[in-house]
Amino acid sequence: MIPYLDRLKARIGRLGPFCVGLDPHPSLLAAWGLPASAAGAERFARSAVEALADQTACFKPQSAFFELWGAAGVQALELVIADAQAAGALVIVDAKRGDIGSTMAAYADAYLGGGPLSGDAVTVSPYLGVGALAPAFERAEACGRGVYVLARTSNPEGGAIQLAAVSGGGTVSQSVVDAAAARNEASGLGAVGLVVGGARAGGGTDLSRFSGSLLVPGVGAQGGSMAVLSQLLGPTPAVVLPTVSRAVLEAGPDPKALRAAAVRFTEEAQAAL
Amino acid sequence: MIPYLDRLKARIGRLGPFCVGLDPHPSLLAAWGLPASAAGAERFARSAVEALADQTACFKPQSAFFELWGAAGVQALELVIADAQAAGALVIVDAKRGDIGSTMAAYADAYLGGGPLSGDAVTVSPYLGVGALAPAFERAEACGRGVYVLARTSNPEGGAIQLAAVSGGGTVSQSVVDAAAARNEASGLGAVGLVVGGARAGGGTDLSRFSGSLLVPGVGAQGGSMAVLSQLLGPTPAVVLPTVSRAVLEAGPDPKALRAAAVRFTEEAQAAL
Repeated sequence: MIPYLDRLKARIGRLGPFCVGLDPHPSLLAAWGLPASAAGAERFARSAVEALADQTACFKPQSAFFELWGAAGVQALELVIADAQAAGALVIVDAKRGDIGSTMAAYADAYLGGGPLSGDAVTVSPYLGVGALAPAFERAEACGRGVYVLARTSNPEGGAIQLAAVSGGGTVSQSVVDAAAARNEASGLGAVGLVVGGARAGGGTDLSRFSGSLLVPGVGAQGGSMAVLSQLLGPTPAVVLPTVSRAVLEAGPDPKALRAAAVRFTEEAQAAL
Repeated sequence: MIPYLDRLKARIGRLGPFCVGLDPHPSLLAAWGLPASAAGAERFARSAVEALADQTACFKPQSAFFELWGAAGVQALELVIADAQAAGALVIVDAKRGDIGSTMAAYADAYLGGGPLSGDAVTVSPYLGVGALAPAFERAEACGRGVYVLARTSNPEGGAIQLAAVSGGGTVSQSVVDAAAARNEASGLGAVGLVVGGARAGGGTDLSRFSGSLLVPGVGAQGGSMAVLSQLLGPTPAVVLPTVSRAVLEAGPDPKALRAAAVRFTEEAQAAL
Protein backbone atom coordinates (compact mmCIF):
# COMPACT_ATOMS: atom_id res chain seq x y z
CA MET A 1 0.00 0.00 0.00
CA ILE A 2 1.61 3.26 -1.11
CA PRO A 3 1.28 5.92 1.61
CA TYR A 4 -1.14 8.76 0.92
CA LEU A 5 1.55 11.44 1.09
CA ASP A 6 3.62 9.67 -1.56
CA ARG A 7 0.59 9.27 -3.83
CA LEU A 8 -0.22 12.93 -3.33
CA LYS A 9 3.34 14.00 -4.15
CA ALA A 10 3.34 11.93 -7.31
CA ARG A 11 0.02 13.32 -8.48
CA ILE A 12 1.02 16.91 -7.66
CA GLY A 13 4.35 16.39 -9.41
CA ARG A 14 2.54 15.44 -12.57
CA LEU A 15 -0.45 17.82 -12.50
CA GLY A 16 0.48 20.66 -10.18
CA PRO A 17 -0.51 21.52 -6.60
CA PHE A 18 -4.25 22.02 -6.85
CA CYS A 19 -7.43 20.56 -5.43
CA VAL A 20 -10.90 21.33 -6.76
CA GLY A 21 -13.52 21.58 -4.05
CA LEU A 22 -16.82 20.00 -5.07
CA ASP A 23 -19.45 22.09 -3.28
CA PRO A 24 -22.83 21.61 -4.95
CA HIS A 25 -24.26 24.68 -3.27
CA PRO A 26 -27.88 25.31 -4.32
CA SER A 27 -26.88 28.64 -5.90
CA LEU A 28 -24.31 26.86 -8.09
CA LEU A 29 -26.86 24.21 -9.06
CA ALA A 30 -29.17 27.01 -10.18
CA ALA A 31 -26.37 28.66 -12.14
CA TRP A 32 -25.70 25.38 -13.92
CA GLY A 33 -29.40 24.93 -14.69
CA LEU A 34 -29.66 21.91 -12.39
CA PRO A 35 -32.42 21.09 -9.92
CA ALA A 36 -31.91 21.71 -6.20
CA SER A 37 -31.93 18.02 -5.31
CA ALA A 38 -29.73 15.00 -4.78
CA ALA A 39 -29.91 14.35 -8.51
CA GLY A 40 -28.78 17.92 -9.21
CA ALA A 41 -25.86 17.63 -6.78
CA GLU A 42 -24.87 14.30 -8.32
CA ARG A 43 -24.99 15.65 -11.87
CA PHE A 44 -23.07 18.77 -10.86
CA ALA A 45 -20.22 17.01 -9.06
CA ARG A 46 -19.90 14.11 -11.51
CA SER A 47 -19.81 16.56 -14.43
CA ALA A 48 -17.03 18.51 -12.74
CA VAL A 49 -15.07 15.32 -12.10
CA GLU A 50 -15.51 14.21 -15.70
CA ALA A 51 -14.29 17.57 -16.99
CA LEU A 52 -11.32 17.91 -14.63
CA ALA A 53 -10.08 14.51 -13.47
CA ASP A 54 -7.30 14.19 -16.04
CA GLN A 55 -5.75 17.53 -15.13
CA THR A 56 -6.48 17.92 -11.39
CA ALA A 57 -4.50 16.25 -8.62
CA CYS A 58 -7.34 16.07 -6.10
CA PHE A 59 -11.02 16.59 -5.54
CA LYS A 60 -12.51 17.63 -2.22
CA PRO A 61 -16.25 16.94 -2.11
CA GLN A 62 -17.94 18.87 0.70
CA SER A 63 -20.11 16.38 2.55
CA ALA A 64 -22.55 19.02 3.87
CA PHE A 65 -23.89 19.77 0.39
CA PHE A 66 -24.65 16.09 -0.13
CA GLU A 67 -26.04 15.41 3.37
CA LEU A 68 -28.40 18.31 2.66
CA TRP A 69 -30.42 15.84 0.58
CA GLY A 70 -30.29 13.03 3.13
CA ALA A 71 -29.45 9.46 2.11
CA ALA A 72 -30.07 10.24 -1.56
CA GLY A 73 -27.42 12.95 -1.38
CA VAL A 74 -25.01 10.63 0.41
CA GLN A 75 -25.52 8.10 -2.36
CA ALA A 76 -24.57 10.83 -4.83
CA LEU A 77 -21.41 11.43 -2.79
CA GLU A 78 -20.56 7.74 -3.05
CA LEU A 79 -20.81 7.96 -6.84
CA VAL A 80 -18.69 11.11 -6.98
CA ILE A 81 -15.96 9.46 -4.91
CA ALA A 82 -16.07 6.36 -7.10
CA ASP A 83 -15.92 8.39 -10.34
CA ALA A 84 -12.97 10.47 -9.20
CA GLN A 85 -11.00 7.47 -7.98
CA ALA A 86 -11.78 5.50 -11.13
CA ALA A 87 -10.33 8.41 -13.10
CA GLY A 88 -7.13 8.25 -11.04
CA ALA A 89 -7.66 11.41 -8.99
CA LEU A 90 -7.27 11.55 -5.22
CA VAL A 91 -10.35 12.31 -3.14
CA ILE A 92 -10.38 14.20 0.16
CA VAL A 93 -13.81 13.88 1.74
CA ASP A 94 -14.42 17.15 3.57
CA ALA A 95 -16.52 15.94 6.48
CA LYS A 96 -14.77 17.50 9.52
CA ARG A 97 -15.78 14.55 11.67
CA GLY A 98 -14.63 14.24 15.26
CA ASP A 99 -15.69 12.05 18.16
CA ILE A 100 -14.20 9.74 20.77
CA GLY A 101 -13.52 6.05 21.29
CA SER A 102 -15.54 3.54 19.32
CA THR A 103 -17.51 6.35 17.64
CA MET A 104 -14.33 7.88 16.25
CA ALA A 105 -13.31 4.39 15.15
CA ALA A 106 -16.62 4.09 13.29
CA TYR A 107 -15.96 7.37 11.47
CA ALA A 108 -12.46 6.10 10.63
CA ASP A 109 -13.94 2.90 9.26
CA ALA A 110 -16.56 4.84 7.28
CA TYR A 111 -14.18 7.32 5.64
CA LEU A 112 -10.84 5.51 5.61
CA GLY A 113 -11.72 1.84 5.78
CA GLY A 114 -12.50 1.17 2.15
CA GLY A 115 -16.29 1.37 2.28
CA PRO A 116 -18.50 3.38 -0.08
CA LEU A 117 -17.68 6.74 1.56
CA SER A 118 -13.93 6.14 1.79
CA GLY A 119 -11.86 8.53 -0.21
CA ASP A 120 -8.09 8.85 -0.07
CA ALA A 121 -8.29 11.21 2.89
CA VAL A 122 -10.84 12.82 5.21
CA THR A 123 -10.92 16.05 7.18
CA VAL A 124 -11.42 15.84 10.96
CA SER A 125 -12.00 18.28 13.82
CA PRO A 126 -9.93 18.18 17.03
CA TYR A 127 -12.22 19.85 19.62
CA LEU A 128 -12.32 16.58 21.60
CA GLY A 129 -8.53 16.50 21.59
CA VAL A 130 -6.07 15.49 18.88
CA GLY A 131 -5.52 12.34 20.92
CA ALA A 132 -9.16 11.36 20.40
CA LEU A 133 -8.49 11.25 16.65
CA ALA A 134 -6.00 8.39 17.04
CA PRO A 135 -8.38 5.78 15.53
CA ALA A 136 -8.42 7.82 12.31
CA PHE A 137 -4.63 8.21 12.28
CA GLU A 138 -4.18 4.47 12.84
CA ARG A 139 -6.63 3.57 10.13
CA ALA A 140 -5.09 6.03 7.67
CA GLU A 141 -1.59 4.73 8.33
CA ALA A 142 -2.71 1.12 7.95
CA CYS A 143 -4.61 1.75 4.71
CA GLY A 144 -2.36 4.18 2.84
CA ARG A 145 -4.86 6.97 3.38
CA GLY A 146 -4.68 10.43 4.93
CA VAL A 147 -6.33 12.54 7.61
CA TYR A 148 -6.42 16.36 7.55
CA VAL A 149 -6.87 17.86 11.01
CA LEU A 150 -8.34 21.35 11.32
CA ALA A 151 -5.57 23.52 12.75
CA ARG A 152 -5.92 27.22 11.88
CA THR A 153 -8.82 28.36 9.74
CA SER A 154 -9.33 31.58 7.85
CA ASN A 155 -12.83 32.47 9.06
CA PRO A 156 -12.94 35.49 11.41
CA GLU A 157 -14.43 33.45 14.28
CA GLY A 158 -11.65 30.85 14.11
CA GLY A 159 -9.18 32.54 16.43
CA ALA A 160 -11.41 32.46 19.49
CA ILE A 161 -10.56 28.81 20.17
CA GLN A 162 -7.64 28.20 17.81
CA LEU A 163 -5.49 30.92 19.40
CA ALA A 164 -6.30 30.07 23.01
CA ALA A 165 -3.23 29.23 25.13
CA VAL A 166 -2.68 25.58 25.99
CA SER A 167 -1.25 24.61 29.36
CA GLY A 168 2.22 23.74 28.06
CA GLY A 169 2.52 27.08 26.26
CA GLY A 170 1.66 28.09 22.70
CA THR A 171 -1.69 28.19 20.96
CA VAL A 172 -4.29 25.50 20.44
CA SER A 173 -3.57 25.55 16.70
CA GLN A 174 0.17 25.13 17.36
CA SER A 175 -0.55 22.17 19.62
CA VAL A 176 -2.49 20.58 16.76
CA VAL A 177 0.41 21.23 14.35
CA ASP A 178 2.92 19.78 16.80
CA ALA A 179 0.81 16.69 17.48
CA ALA A 180 0.44 16.05 13.76
CA ALA A 181 4.18 16.50 13.19
CA ALA A 182 5.00 14.14 16.04
CA ARG A 183 2.61 11.50 14.73
CA ASN A 184 4.17 11.71 11.27
CA GLU A 185 7.70 11.51 12.69
CA ALA A 186 6.76 8.41 14.64
CA SER A 187 5.12 6.66 11.69
CA GLY A 188 7.40 7.87 8.93
CA LEU A 189 4.33 7.89 6.70
CA GLY A 190 3.07 11.47 6.75
CA ALA A 191 -0.54 10.30 6.91
CA VAL A 192 -1.56 13.26 9.08
CA GLY A 193 -2.12 16.51 7.24
CA LEU A 194 -3.45 19.86 8.44
CA VAL A 195 -6.12 22.29 7.30
CA VAL A 196 -4.65 25.79 7.41
CA GLY A 197 -6.25 28.92 6.02
CA GLY A 198 -3.75 30.69 3.80
CA ALA A 199 -4.45 34.20 5.00
CA ARG A 200 -4.33 33.27 8.68
CA ALA A 201 -1.39 30.94 8.73
CA GLY A 202 1.03 33.53 10.05
CA GLY A 203 -0.73 34.27 13.31
CA GLY A 204 0.23 31.99 16.16
CA THR A 205 1.01 28.96 14.04
CA ASP A 206 4.55 27.91 13.20
CA LEU A 207 4.56 25.44 10.31
CA SER A 208 8.31 25.29 9.80
CA ARG A 209 8.71 21.83 11.33
CA PHE A 210 5.71 20.26 9.61
CA SER A 211 6.45 18.24 6.50
CA GLY A 212 3.12 16.49 5.93
CA SER A 213 0.41 17.88 3.67
CA LEU A 214 -1.28 21.24 4.19
CA LEU A 215 -4.76 21.59 2.78
CA VAL A 216 -5.34 25.29 2.18
CA PRO A 217 -8.93 26.27 1.43
CA GLY A 218 -10.15 29.65 0.48
CA VAL A 219 -7.55 30.68 -2.06
CA GLY A 220 -10.36 31.82 -4.30
CA ALA A 221 -13.63 33.06 -2.85
CA GLN A 222 -12.36 33.26 0.72
CA GLY A 223 -9.36 35.42 -0.19
CA GLY A 224 -6.45 33.42 1.18
CA SER A 225 -2.92 33.92 0.07
CA MET A 226 -0.49 31.32 -1.21
CA ALA A 227 2.42 33.72 -1.07
CA VAL A 228 1.98 34.31 2.66
CA LEU A 229 1.81 30.61 3.29
CA SER A 230 4.85 29.64 1.26
CA GLN A 231 7.02 31.90 3.40
CA LEU A 232 6.08 29.94 6.50
CA LEU A 233 7.37 26.57 5.35
CA GLY A 234 10.51 25.03 6.73
CA PRO A 235 13.60 23.35 5.24
CA THR A 236 11.66 20.10 4.67
CA PRO A 237 8.59 21.88 3.42
CA ALA A 238 5.05 20.67 3.80
CA VAL A 239 3.21 19.50 0.68
CA VAL A 240 0.87 22.43 0.12
CA LEU A 241 -2.44 21.68 -1.53
CA PRO A 242 -4.49 24.79 -2.29
CA THR A 243 -8.14 24.07 -2.78
CA VAL A 244 -10.67 26.23 -4.60
CA SER A 245 -14.32 25.48 -5.05
CA ARG A 246 -16.70 28.18 -6.15
CA ALA A 247 -14.21 30.26 -8.13
CA VAL A 248 -13.59 27.24 -10.37
CA LEU A 249 -17.08 25.78 -10.43
CA GLU A 250 -18.84 29.01 -11.33
CA ALA A 251 -17.01 28.81 -14.66
CA GLY A 252 -19.15 25.75 -15.50
CA PRO A 253 -21.10 23.91 -16.64
CA ASP A 254 -19.16 24.21 -19.92
CA PRO A 255 -16.30 21.66 -19.57
CA LYS A 256 -13.85 23.81 -21.53
CA ALA A 257 -14.48 26.80 -19.29
CA LEU A 258 -14.14 24.63 -16.20
CA ARG A 259 -10.84 23.25 -17.44
CA ALA A 260 -9.56 26.71 -18.25
CA ALA A 261 -10.45 27.99 -14.78
CA ALA A 262 -8.74 25.05 -13.11
CA VAL A 263 -5.63 25.51 -15.26
CA ARG A 264 -5.48 29.18 -14.29
CA PHE A 265 -5.66 28.42 -10.55
CA THR A 266 -3.18 25.56 -10.84
CA GLU A 267 -0.68 27.81 -12.58
CA GLU A 268 -1.18 30.56 -10.01
CA ALA A 269 -0.64 28.09 -7.17
CA GLN A 270 2.45 26.67 -8.82
CA ALA A 271 3.90 30.15 -9.33
CA ALA A 272 3.22 31.22 -5.73
CA LEU A 273 4.70 28.04 -4.27
CA MET B 1 -43.85 26.46 16.59
CA ILE B 2 -43.20 25.42 20.19
CA PRO B 3 -39.52 25.99 21.11
CA TYR B 4 -37.36 22.90 21.50
CA LEU B 5 -36.55 23.61 25.14
CA ASP B 6 -40.25 23.79 26.03
CA ARG B 7 -40.99 20.56 24.18
CA LEU B 8 -38.06 18.93 25.98
CA LYS B 9 -39.24 20.15 29.39
CA ALA B 10 -42.74 18.85 28.75
CA ARG B 11 -41.50 15.44 27.67
CA ILE B 12 -39.06 15.20 30.60
CA GLY B 13 -41.81 16.28 32.98
CA ARG B 14 -43.94 13.38 31.84
CA LEU B 15 -41.34 10.64 31.35
CA GLY B 16 -38.28 11.67 33.36
CA PRO B 17 -34.90 13.12 32.39
CA PHE B 18 -33.42 10.45 30.19
CA CYS B 19 -32.19 10.01 26.63
CA VAL B 20 -31.39 6.65 25.06
CA GLY B 21 -28.38 6.75 22.76
CA LEU B 22 -28.88 4.65 19.64
CA ASP B 23 -25.40 3.40 18.79
CA PRO B 24 -25.61 0.37 16.52
CA HIS B 25 -22.02 -0.60 17.19
CA PRO B 26 -21.06 -3.79 15.35
CA SER B 27 -20.46 -5.57 18.67
CA LEU B 28 -24.01 -4.76 19.78
CA LEU B 29 -25.39 -5.94 16.46
CA ALA B 30 -23.59 -9.24 17.02
CA ALA B 31 -24.95 -9.49 20.56
CA TRP B 32 -28.48 -8.97 19.22
CA GLY B 33 -27.95 -11.62 16.53
CA LEU B 34 -28.13 -9.02 13.75
CA PRO B 35 -25.92 -8.74 10.67
CA ALA B 36 -23.13 -6.14 10.57
CA SER B 37 -24.79 -4.10 7.85
CA ALA B 38 -27.09 -1.16 7.22
CA ALA B 39 -30.03 -3.55 7.54
CA GLY B 40 -28.72 -4.72 10.90
CA ALA B 41 -28.26 -1.17 12.15
CA GLU B 42 -31.75 -0.28 10.97
CA ARG B 43 -33.34 -3.28 12.65
CA PHE B 44 -31.40 -2.64 15.85
CA ALA B 45 -32.28 1.03 16.21
CA ARG B 46 -35.90 0.73 15.06
CA SER B 47 -36.46 -2.17 17.48
CA ALA B 48 -35.06 -0.08 20.33
CA VAL B 49 -37.30 2.84 19.37
CA GLU B 50 -40.33 0.57 19.19
CA ALA B 51 -39.60 -0.88 22.63
CA LEU B 52 -38.81 2.42 24.35
CA ALA B 53 -40.57 5.34 22.63
CA ASP B 54 -43.56 5.44 24.98
CA GLN B 55 -41.42 5.70 28.10
CA THR B 56 -38.32 7.61 26.95
CA ALA B 57 -38.13 11.38 26.54
CA CYS B 58 -35.47 11.40 23.83
CA PHE B 59 -33.43 9.29 21.48
CA LYS B 60 -29.93 10.19 20.35
CA PRO B 61 -28.92 8.23 17.25
CA GLN B 62 -25.16 8.32 16.71
CA SER B 63 -24.63 9.21 13.06
CA ALA B 64 -21.19 7.55 12.84
CA PHE B 65 -22.65 4.06 13.26
CA PHE B 66 -25.03 4.71 10.36
CA GLU B 67 -22.50 6.48 8.09
CA LEU B 68 -20.34 3.40 8.58
CA TRP B 69 -22.59 1.71 6.00
CA GLY B 70 -22.62 4.62 3.58
CA ALA B 71 -25.81 5.87 2.01
CA ALA B 72 -27.66 2.69 2.98
CA GLY B 73 -26.84 3.38 6.61
CA VAL B 74 -27.91 7.01 6.28
CA GLN B 75 -31.21 5.81 4.87
CA ALA B 76 -31.59 3.64 7.97
CA LEU B 77 -30.94 6.74 10.09
CA GLU B 78 -33.72 8.58 8.25
CA LEU B 79 -36.12 5.77 9.13
CA VAL B 80 -35.04 5.73 12.77
CA ILE B 81 -35.61 9.49 13.06
CA ALA B 82 -39.03 9.16 11.42
CA ASP B 83 -40.07 6.25 13.67
CA ALA B 84 -39.06 8.03 16.86
CA GLN B 85 -40.78 11.27 15.91
CA ALA B 86 -43.91 9.45 14.79
CA ALA B 87 -44.02 7.86 18.25
CA GLY B 88 -43.82 11.30 19.86
CA ALA B 89 -40.25 11.08 21.14
CA LEU B 90 -37.69 13.84 20.61
CA VAL B 91 -34.64 13.04 18.48
CA ILE B 92 -31.17 14.49 18.94
CA VAL B 93 -29.02 13.56 15.94
CA ASP B 94 -25.51 13.12 17.31
CA ALA B 95 -23.46 14.28 14.33
CA LYS B 96 -21.01 16.79 15.86
CA ARG B 97 -20.98 18.79 12.65
CA GLY B 98 -19.09 22.04 12.38
CA ASP B 99 -18.05 24.23 9.46
CA ILE B 100 -18.19 27.84 8.30
CA GLY B 101 -20.36 30.07 6.16
CA SER B 102 -22.56 28.49 3.53
CA THR B 103 -21.27 25.03 4.47
CA MET B 104 -22.45 25.44 8.06
CA ALA B 105 -25.74 26.71 6.67
CA ALA B 106 -26.03 23.52 4.61
CA TYR B 107 -25.51 21.41 7.72
CA ALA B 108 -28.14 23.52 9.49
CA ASP B 109 -30.55 22.94 6.62
CA ALA B 110 -29.76 19.22 6.59
CA TYR B 111 -30.23 18.58 10.32
CA LEU B 112 -32.59 21.36 11.42
CA GLY B 113 -34.44 22.38 8.27
CA GLY B 114 -37.10 19.70 8.16
CA GLY B 115 -35.51 17.36 5.62
CA PRO B 116 -35.10 13.60 6.03
CA LEU B 117 -32.17 13.89 8.47
CA SER B 118 -33.75 16.59 10.61
CA GLY B 119 -34.40 15.57 14.17
CA ASP B 120 -35.49 17.88 16.97
CA ALA B 121 -31.88 18.83 17.71
CA VAL B 122 -28.36 18.17 16.47
CA THR B 123 -24.93 18.16 18.12
CA VAL B 124 -22.27 20.50 16.73
CA SER B 125 -18.55 21.10 17.30
CA PRO B 126 -17.12 24.61 17.89
CA TYR B 127 -13.46 24.28 16.80
CA LEU B 128 -14.06 26.85 14.04
CA GLY B 129 -15.48 29.24 16.65
CA VAL B 130 -18.89 29.31 18.31
CA GLY B 131 -19.63 32.29 16.07
CA ALA B 132 -19.27 30.07 13.00
CA LEU B 133 -22.19 27.99 14.30
CA ALA B 134 -24.61 30.93 14.00
CA PRO B 135 -26.42 29.48 10.94
CA ALA B 136 -27.37 26.47 13.06
CA PHE B 137 -28.53 28.63 15.97
CA GLU B 138 -30.62 30.78 13.61
CA ARG B 139 -32.18 27.79 11.94
CA ALA B 140 -32.93 26.09 15.27
CA GLU B 141 -34.54 29.23 16.68
CA ALA B 142 -36.63 29.71 13.55
CA CYS B 143 -37.82 26.09 13.43
CA GLY B 144 -38.43 25.24 17.10
CA ARG B 145 -35.42 22.97 17.10
CA GLY B 146 -32.25 22.76 19.21
CA VAL B 147 -28.47 22.69 18.85
CA TYR B 148 -26.13 21.09 21.38
CA VAL B 149 -22.62 22.55 21.25
CA LEU B 150 -19.70 20.47 22.51
CA ALA B 151 -18.37 22.29 25.57
CA ARG B 152 -16.56 20.01 28.03
CA THR B 153 -16.28 16.32 27.30
CA SER B 154 -15.42 13.45 29.58
CA ASN B 155 -12.75 11.75 27.46
CA PRO B 156 -9.21 12.05 28.87
CA GLU B 157 -7.94 13.89 25.76
CA GLY B 158 -10.67 16.52 25.98
CA GLY B 159 -8.91 18.96 28.29
CA ALA B 160 -6.01 19.67 25.94
CA ILE B 161 -8.10 22.11 23.90
CA GLN B 162 -11.18 22.59 26.08
CA LEU B 163 -9.18 23.88 29.05
CA ALA B 164 -6.89 26.18 27.03
CA ALA B 165 -7.05 29.84 28.08
CA VAL B 166 -8.92 32.22 25.78
CA SER B 167 -7.69 35.77 25.33
CA GLY B 168 -10.41 37.38 27.47
CA GLY B 169 -9.68 35.02 30.39
CA GLY B 170 -11.21 31.68 31.30
CA THR B 171 -11.17 28.39 29.47
CA VAL B 172 -12.25 27.49 25.95
CA SER B 173 -15.09 25.41 27.39
CA GLN B 174 -16.23 28.32 29.56
CA SER B 175 -16.24 30.59 26.50
CA VAL B 176 -18.51 28.08 24.77
CA VAL B 177 -20.83 27.97 27.80
CA ASP B 178 -20.93 31.77 27.99
CA ALA B 179 -21.62 32.17 24.26
CA ALA B 180 -24.48 29.66 24.46
CA ALA B 181 -25.94 31.41 27.51
CA ALA B 182 -25.71 34.80 25.78
CA ARG B 183 -27.40 33.47 22.65
CA ASN B 184 -30.25 32.01 24.72
CA GLU B 185 -30.66 35.24 26.70
CA ALA B 186 -30.89 37.21 23.47
CA SER B 187 -33.44 34.89 21.84
CA GLY B 188 -35.42 33.96 24.94
CA LEU B 189 -35.85 30.53 23.33
CA GLY B 190 -33.15 28.36 24.87
CA ALA B 191 -32.45 26.70 21.52
CA VAL B 192 -28.75 26.36 22.29
CA GLY B 193 -27.79 23.48 24.54
CA LEU B 194 -24.41 22.14 25.60
CA VAL B 195 -22.73 18.75 25.65
CA VAL B 196 -21.01 18.35 29.01
CA GLY B 197 -19.45 15.17 30.35
CA GLY B 198 -20.80 14.50 33.83
CA ALA B 199 -17.54 13.47 35.43
CA ARG B 200 -15.59 16.42 33.99
CA ALA B 201 -18.07 19.21 34.43
CA GLY B 202 -16.42 20.51 37.59
CA GLY B 203 -13.06 21.36 36.06
CA GLY B 204 -12.84 24.79 34.52
CA THR B 205 -16.48 25.06 33.52
CA ASP B 206 -19.00 27.12 35.49
CA LEU B 207 -22.54 26.14 34.51
CA SER B 208 -24.35 28.17 37.15
CA ARG B 209 -25.57 30.84 34.71
CA PHE B 210 -26.65 28.44 31.98
CA SER B 211 -30.33 27.60 31.88
CA GLY B 212 -30.63 25.85 28.51
CA SER B 213 -30.35 22.10 28.09
CA LEU B 214 -27.29 20.07 29.06
CA LEU B 215 -26.80 16.82 27.22
CA VAL B 216 -24.71 14.58 29.46
CA PRO B 217 -23.33 11.45 27.80
CA GLY B 218 -21.45 8.71 29.48
CA VAL B 219 -23.52 8.21 32.59
CA GLY B 220 -23.37 4.49 31.94
CA ALA B 221 -20.40 2.96 30.16
CA GLN B 222 -18.24 6.08 30.31
CA GLY B 223 -18.58 6.48 34.09
CA GLY B 224 -19.95 10.01 34.42
CA SER B 225 -21.69 11.22 37.49
CA MET B 226 -25.07 12.89 37.74
CA ALA B 227 -24.55 13.81 41.36
CA VAL B 228 -21.42 15.83 40.56
CA LEU B 229 -23.22 17.63 37.79
CA SER B 230 -26.33 18.53 39.74
CA GLN B 231 -24.20 20.41 42.26
CA LEU B 232 -22.94 22.71 39.51
CA LEU B 233 -26.30 24.07 38.42
CA GLY B 234 -27.45 27.57 39.24
CA PRO B 235 -30.63 29.14 40.60
CA THR B 236 -32.35 28.86 37.20
CA PRO B 237 -30.99 25.39 36.57
CA ALA B 238 -30.21 23.94 33.20
CA VAL B 239 -32.43 21.17 31.86
CA VAL B 240 -30.17 18.17 32.35
CA LEU B 241 -30.58 15.29 29.93
CA PRO B 242 -28.45 12.27 30.79
CA THR B 243 -27.90 9.96 27.87
CA VAL B 244 -26.92 6.31 28.03
CA SER B 245 -26.36 4.05 25.08
CA ARG B 246 -24.60 0.76 25.52
CA ALA B 247 -25.58 0.12 29.13
CA VAL B 248 -29.25 0.19 28.06
CA LEU B 249 -28.94 -1.45 24.66
CA GLU B 250 -26.91 -4.42 25.83
CA ALA B 251 -30.02 -5.47 27.78
CA GLY B 252 -31.71 -6.14 24.42
CA PRO B 253 -32.97 -7.38 22.09
CA ASP B 254 -35.76 -8.51 24.44
CA PRO B 255 -38.13 -5.51 24.63
CA LYS B 256 -39.04 -6.14 28.26
CA ALA B 257 -35.40 -6.23 29.31
CA LEU B 258 -34.72 -3.06 27.31
CA ARG B 259 -37.62 -1.30 28.99
CA ALA B 260 -36.50 -2.44 32.43
CA ALA B 261 -32.97 -1.15 31.83
CA ALA B 262 -34.27 2.21 30.62
CA VAL B 263 -36.58 2.50 33.62
CA ARG B 264 -33.68 1.80 35.97
CA PHE B 265 -31.51 4.53 34.42
CA THR B 266 -34.38 7.00 34.28
CA GLU B 267 -35.10 6.46 37.98
CA GLU B 268 -31.42 6.82 38.85
CA ALA B 269 -31.18 10.06 36.89
CA GLN B 270 -34.33 11.41 38.48
CA ALA B 271 -33.05 10.59 41.97
CA ALA B 272 -29.64 12.18 41.35
CA LEU B 273 -31.13 15.34 39.88
